[in-house]
Amino acid sequence: MDAGDITVIRQAAGMQALSRGWHSEGLAVGLVPTMGALHKGHLDLVVEARRQCDRVVVSIFVNPTQFGPSEDFSRYPRDLEGDLAKLADIGVDAVFFPNPGEMYPSGFQTRVELTRLPAHLCGLTRLNHFAGVAQVVLKLFNICKPDVAVFGQKDFQQVRVIEQMVADLNLDIRIVRHPIVREPDGLAMSSRNVYLTREQREAATVINRTLVDSEAWIREGEHQPAAIVKRAGQQIREAGGEVEYFNVCDPVTLDDLNRIGAESTQVLLVTAVRFGATRLIDNRLVDCVWAPQPM
Amino acid sequence: MDAGDITVIRQAAGMQALSRGWHSEGLAVGLVPTMGALHKGHLDLVVEARRQCDRVVVSIFVNPTQFGPSEDFSRYPRDLEGDLAKLADIGVDAVFFPNPGEMYPSGFQTRVELTRLPAHLCGLTRLNHFAGVAQVVLKLFNICKPDVAVFGQKDFQQVRVIEQMVADLNLDIRIVRHPIVREPDGLAMSSRNVYLTREQREAATVINRTLVDSEAWIREGEHQPAAIVKRAGQQIREAGGEVEYFNVCDPVTLDDLNRIGAESTQVLLVTAVRFGATRLIDNRLVDCVWAPQPM
Repeated sequence: MDAGDITVIRQAAGMQALSRGWHSEGLAVGLVPTMGALHKGHLDLVVEARRQCDRVVVSIFVNPTQFGPSEDFSRYPRDLEGDLAKLADIGVDAVFFPNPGEMYPSGFQTRVELTRLPAHLCGLTRLNHFAGVAQVVLKLFNICKPDVAVFGQKDFQQVRVIEQMVADLNLDIRIVRHPIVREPDGLAMSSRNVYLTREQREAATVINRTLVDSEAWIREGEHQPAAIVKRAGQQIREAGGEVEYFNVCDPVTLDDLNRIGAESTQVLLVTAVRFGATRLIDNRLVDCVWAPQPM
Repeated sequence: MDAGDITVIRQAAGMQALSRGWHSEGLAVGLVPTMGALHKGHLDLVVEARRQCDRVVVSIFVNPTQFGPSEDFSRYPRDLEGDLAKLADIGVDAVFFPNPGEMYPSGFQTRVELTRLPAHLCGLTRLNHFAGVAQVVLKLFNICKPDVAVFGQKDFQQVRVIEQMVADLNLDIRIVRHPIVREPDGLAMSSRNVYLTREQREAATVINRTLVDSEAWIREGEHQPAAIVKRAGQQIREAGGEVEYFNVCDPVTLDDLNRIGAESTQVLLVTAVRFGATRLIDNRLVDCVWAPQPM
């Protein structure tokens, strides 16, 4: 099979008709929404969708509404030919690849916005980012009509926003969270890793190392989030990273925790770190199965 | 057939499963969203859905998110038993009748908002009303999964908001506008007409009479919106109505027109009038098939 075997669809109506046809045959449809520049992290999502569904659609759309004016929309990596080759190797049934005018035609004016989840973490510096994400993902859901949609857990806040939107709007779609896929040295895979210099690339391994260490500190008995945040921040800064945030929070509401193990059975360690102009995110979900300590 | 023959469904998941089953049989599903207190205007929408679809769902939900704090949410007329009897006479396949907790459970936080259409007409005084309408209608669409949804044209701005949302979010649903249904004396049917005293009820006929007269003034050659608005306002006020607005606008954007016949082939005459505490709306779509006059 080669890239020529993938149907690339550029019109929403055509994609809808294709998916409608599959549903009428009783086939289950899986969707993996992406912005292209596909790496192994994305491809694992596609394999997961392939495993769970009869038909798999990958959408490739660098969505302008989720980038801020000073962000990297125009220089975000784009490589349709390479992406199609990678997807052909796995076998997907369609790639939905619209242009911005197809997604946001003249007269477009509908915003989709969550009121609480975006008021945390990345949402504090990336204003309107999650409104853009919710808007485009809702459109992609309505266009591709999946039964199942697979998202990577690296963008944890994004997954929570989408899960909450799906629940709130009664979308008849099952959201599958896929574990973070990492490079051999632990760095979470990201299309933005290509921005890193060789030196930054090496230094960036501190992010995952610090998340792993933080879990160890918790298991050794450190139940004060402030102490974890301080120690983790120091470790990342010493390696040359600029910490935008490092939080210990509830994995459902994303609210900061006052004490680890007291409020939730799972704790989310989540961070955004800059190396030069490149902003990387990562996280680690920690099970708190021990009994809460006396306050 | 009697009221006992209608399936009343209170859970979103149950409604979704029912509609999913119909779709898997290849049946077309029609939805008529209502707030109950059904009158002949609603019933005509149901008959239209019946005519176009294999299965018909009527939703009855007085949606709290589309009422302002000083509006009539708590006293809005409610009559489930009467509504079911009326629907049984027509024959509907299901009534979706959720409670507010089913629609807006704890943690709910997704807003759906249009940026331009609500900045006109009713949206200027009913802040957040159309965000509430868009939100609940989107949820009802996802729950009831209609192929066709029928709305009355009396709430013209509401229909436009829904049409625009359907287009913007790529919903695979055909919106049917149904003509305004009127009492024998011309008053547009409304669940709120029951609020009127006998005197107000009689005076309220001025609304439709003025819309009809306005069309006549246009046909007689009056192409200045300001002149129509002035004359119409005087006529309504003389009959005891308090004019909230009377506009001559583009029926797609709802922008005010500068000159009738110059910008659009259709003109919307649209008004909101109070009699005492009761606020009534009405409108009339006028075809401008004549050649535009020299400016």
